[in-house]
Amino acid sequence: MFTLDPDSSYMMPAHFGPRPVSPKSSGRYRDVTMMVVPFLTDRDRLAAYLPAPYEVAESAVVTVTYACNRNVDWLAGRGYHLVGVSAEVVFRGEKETLEGNYTLVMWENLTDPILTGRELQGIPKIYADIEDHSVIAGEWHASASHFGNKILDMSVADLRAPTAEEVQAYAQATEGRDNPMAWRYLPGVGGLGQSISETTTFPSATTLSETLVGEGRLDWNHLNWEQNPTQFHIVNALAELPVVAYLPAVVAKGSVDLILPRRPSRVIG
Amino acid sequence: MFTLDPDSSYMMPAHFGPRPVSPKSSGRYRDVTMMVVPFLTDRDRLAAYLPAPYEVAESAVVTVTYACNRNVDWLAGRGYHLVGVSAEVVFRGEKETLEGNYTLVMWENLTDPILTGRELQGIPKIYADIEDHSVIAGEWHASASHFGNKILDMSVADLRAPTAEEVQAYAQATEGRDNPMAWRYLPGVGGLGQSISETTTFPSATTLSETLVGEGRLDWNHLNWEQNPTQFHIVNALAELPVVAYLPAVVAKGSVDLILPRRPSRVIG
Amino acid sequence: MFTLDPDSSYMMPAHFGPRPVSPKSSGRYRDVTMMVVPFLTDRDRLAAYLPAPYEVAESAVVTVTYACNRNVDWLAGRGYHLVGVSAEVVFRGEKETLEGNYTLVMWENLTDPILTGRELQGIPKIYADIEDHSVIAGEWHASASHFGNKILDMSVADLRAPTAEEVQAYAQATEGRDNPMAWRYLPGVGGLGQSISETTTFPSATTLSETLVGEGRLDWNHLNWEQNPTQFHIVNALAELPVVAYLPAVVAKGSVDLILPRRPSRVIG
Amino acid sequence: MFTLDPDSSYMMPAHFGPRPVSPKSSGRYRDVTMMVVPFLTDRDRLAAYLPAPYEVAESAVVTVTYACNRNVDWLAGRGYHLVGVSAEVVFRGEKETLEGNYTLVMWENLTDPILTGRELQGIPKIYADIEDHSVIAGEWHASASHFGNKILDMSVADLRAPTAEEVQAYAQATEGRDNPMAWRYLPGVGGLGQSISETTTFPSATTLSETLVGEGRLDWNHLNWEQNPTQFHIVNALAELPVVAYLPAVVAKGSVDLILPRRPSRVIG
Repeated sequence: MFTLDPDSSYMMPAHFGPRPVSPKSSGRYRDVTMMVVPFLTDRDRLAAYLPAPYEVAESAVVTVTYACNRNVDWLAGRGYHLVGVSAEVVFRGEKETLEGNYTLVMWENLTDPILTGRELQGIPKIYADIEDHSVIAGEWHASASHFGNKILDMSVADLRAPTAEEVQAYAQATEGRDNPMAWRYLPGVGGLGQSISETTTFPSATTLSETLVGEGRLDWNHLNWEQNPTQFHIVNALAELPVVAYLPAVVAKGSVDLILPRRPSRVIG
Repeated sequence: MFTLDPDSSYMMPAHFGPRPVSPKSSGRYRDVTMMVVPFLTDRDRLAAYLPAPYEVAESAVVTVTYACNRNVDWLAGRGYHLVGVSAEVVFRGEKETLEGNYTLVMWENLTDPILTGRELQGIPKIYADIEDHSVIAGEWHASASHFGNKILDMSVADLRAPTAEEVQAYAQATEGRDNPMAWRYLPGVGGLGQSISETTTFPSATTLSETLVGEGRLDWNHLNWEQNPTQFHIVNALAELPVVAYLPAVVAKGSVDLILPRRPSRVIG
Repeated sequence: MFTLDPDSSYMMPAHFGPRPVSPKSSGRYRDVTMMVVPFLTDRDRLAAYLPAPYEVAESAVVTVTYACNRNVDWLAGRGYHLVGVSAEVVFRGEKETLEGNYTLVMWENLTDPILTGRELQGIPKIYADIEDHSVIAGEWHASASHFGNKILDMSVADLRAPTAEEVQAYAQATEGRDNPMAWRYLPGVGGLGQSISETTTFPSATTLSETLVGEGRLDWNHLNWEQNPTQFHIVNALAELPVVAYLPAVVAKGSVDLILPRRPSRVIG
Repeated sequence: MFTLDPDSSYMMPAHFGPRPVSPKSSGRYRDVTMMVVPFLTDRDRLAAYLPAPYEVAESAVVTVTYACNRNVDWLAGRGYHLVGVSAEVVFRGEKETLEGNYTLVMWENLTDPILTGRELQGIPKIYADIEDHSVIAGEWHASASHFGNKILDMSVADLRAPTAEEVQAYAQATEGRDNPMAWRYLPGVGGLGQSISETTTFPSATTLSETLVGEGRLDWNHLNWEQNPTQFHIVNALAELPVVAYLPAVVAKGSVDLILPRRPSRVIG
């Protein structure tokens, strides 16, 4: 008979034992390349996608981030790609108020981190084919597709080093707001009702070694059910979110640590 | 502000609305090709993987099933492949006793059904590359790999039509036991503790149009953490489960309906 | 020192020996599913793509064929997908006149048959991601993409059994014209000049077990160099070929034999 | 009617026009990461794979190279992976003698460079799935598979900076020997006879920015026809080539330029 060890961490299938660990494993993503394209959108349109007690922050900013993750320790040195969409929000809970970014959706091209992200943190990860970014004539490109149908093309052009003022403004704008947040929701068996509904935060630490600033651009496709039966409503919602203005886009290299012993993933309330 | 409609079914990300439906959608898998390889194993070794109140059935039978699913309605007519491993069990709950098959693990090559299976039914689905089965010189082959490392090769050879006795014996053996079962388990945020732990059943109806009987064979690989850091413990557990004797293997074509209005997926207790 | 056996067939790398054979191999494609979408186009526009002595046939018909090939003997029972584009032509050579179909381009999702087709017959095969066709609500769909960018969507709807007249008309129209043809061209080392330039035919035998007739549709994408740097000129040429009228489309299942001992692949002249 | 422009470079399908060019294109591979594992082998065993007038060089050295090519200009900034196997040789032709490396085989995970390499230079490129290399606990890994069956695992461990002596010895050993060579062979239509048989060289310039030295290791799989019907004889030949001793392996980053105006790809004789 199989029994759970209460000090261990399990995911389905749990009956073969805890999630495997290795002395070589850690939360380190040692080689990360990012394209970050933020834009101002319509406040009310964005608010329609935020469950209480999340509210749109002072500025209605949505950010699309492509990341090429390599040398990821928990994948034994392998990697994967992601395209995440998040919104600047304020969480006004009963016990705490937290400024940060609410993850609207995150596409990844590897199922393993999709499962851990969904089940351990409530990050709304879903699958897409995401090829390596390409760089041609100084312009960076990334894209995501599923079932052979394009979801998004994104690019950053006219790259230059950031000014000292930009670096300082960025540091001020993000100070104390490095709180990625999400909504861990699981329905009852069969799909109706709810088994889990809780708001979460999952801090990580990013160290950048190279940063350039440029002009970002996003081209969302509109899709129908036949083209992407599991995600078309998500893609269309994002395609219809107005781009009031693009903010400076960033291309950067660095590393990420997912595990901060003093700031673990947790429920916020 | 986003609010849930209590009559709808949601999965993460829930804030973009309920799981999409189409008038063209249903639970039908219209074109399914299967290879089914059952074997007798060691009773105690198998029991070690069953959480209470699941018990090994009268015979300690484990079945490995490859399925090539095509023309799947909820995927807008697309398909995917799976390799599932299940054990014959008796569920002896407080309220009900149920004979059927407990899903030990199910590899699939598409993330979308992995997410619905895990979150709506608790089926322990994980990802593998599973190519189309091949047929050469009358022998059928299928296999599964992840991160470029082989998990399993399976084959069925010496195919022939089943005898009337075999058909009748099979009908008797499975009557009233068509109950796929699983354990829906989700940890707390961050991975420790448990948020959901419940036993489930998720009936479906399979209609076979062609069935052949043959000699099955399974070749599991042994893997280390470097080769498959998220699944090696599962693969090794199955590789080490003794094959006391192969039972007649089956190759079949047909269709499957996942949704039986009178027998919905449910928690058993 | 490696030397060639003049009675064997070699492809690069030749120095490891002849192309491997097996007693289980043959030219049989045992399970083929096809979507065939022919259309009338502009005579002069089509003629611009035909090298002498190929001429547009009596009708300027271009046919786009999707095939899902399974249980292919020379691939040890595996399969692959293709999307081919051919034109009805007359070859008026010095020695012979031949009516048949000239292959304008053939996309395949497996490199092995691309290499054999190009090098042994001169079929202008190139790579594309081609997913399994999907069937939803009676409508068939297939598509091809490369580098994440869609090349073509094709579909066949309103399927029905062909009338006796249609079957007879088709037999008459194709009698004696079952001659697939191509132009085997290889440049000199480095890319300039020509090392091989010869016209070829490569007969095969198709046996159909199920045939339905319907309404075909083709949606070509227009692409730029950044999207598909090796094929955009081909895709755009086909996208700009006018569809004067669609002819009845066909969905069919059957088998194909690539090797006809009395009608081998050969140079025509 | 289509006619060739004698000043342009064509590949099949030639009738849609010359190989496309862009002002953004060039022969630059701007971001290349390599693992290089050389070993001493048996002189006679290696000689059996060399067509005249290639001879084994003073030392019977075979080198396996993995390269992760990114930001490749002719692919509009995309990339691909390769695993190449070459032997140190002397070409003793009628007109010239050339020391360099003869390409025994090169696996690549993208069909486009496979076709250009085969047809423009005679490089014996064939397809394999080659995932991004992984780096874990300071050890580098790469591998190649086809049809779901592993061809090769390679690794480099115990990395350290090269000594000044090693750098100098390497420079001396390779001076004037940077001549990659191959055998461009194409059979007649249908596969018998030969249409092209010529020896080639295709110089390129590699610039390394980071180089580390370590212990290499190669683990070839043995395969049968069922597992890899088009390549098993190649894989087995390499698996059976004795490793008399591993030479120092290298891990390096840098860039490559395929086009050297003064040293174009050419036939040697």
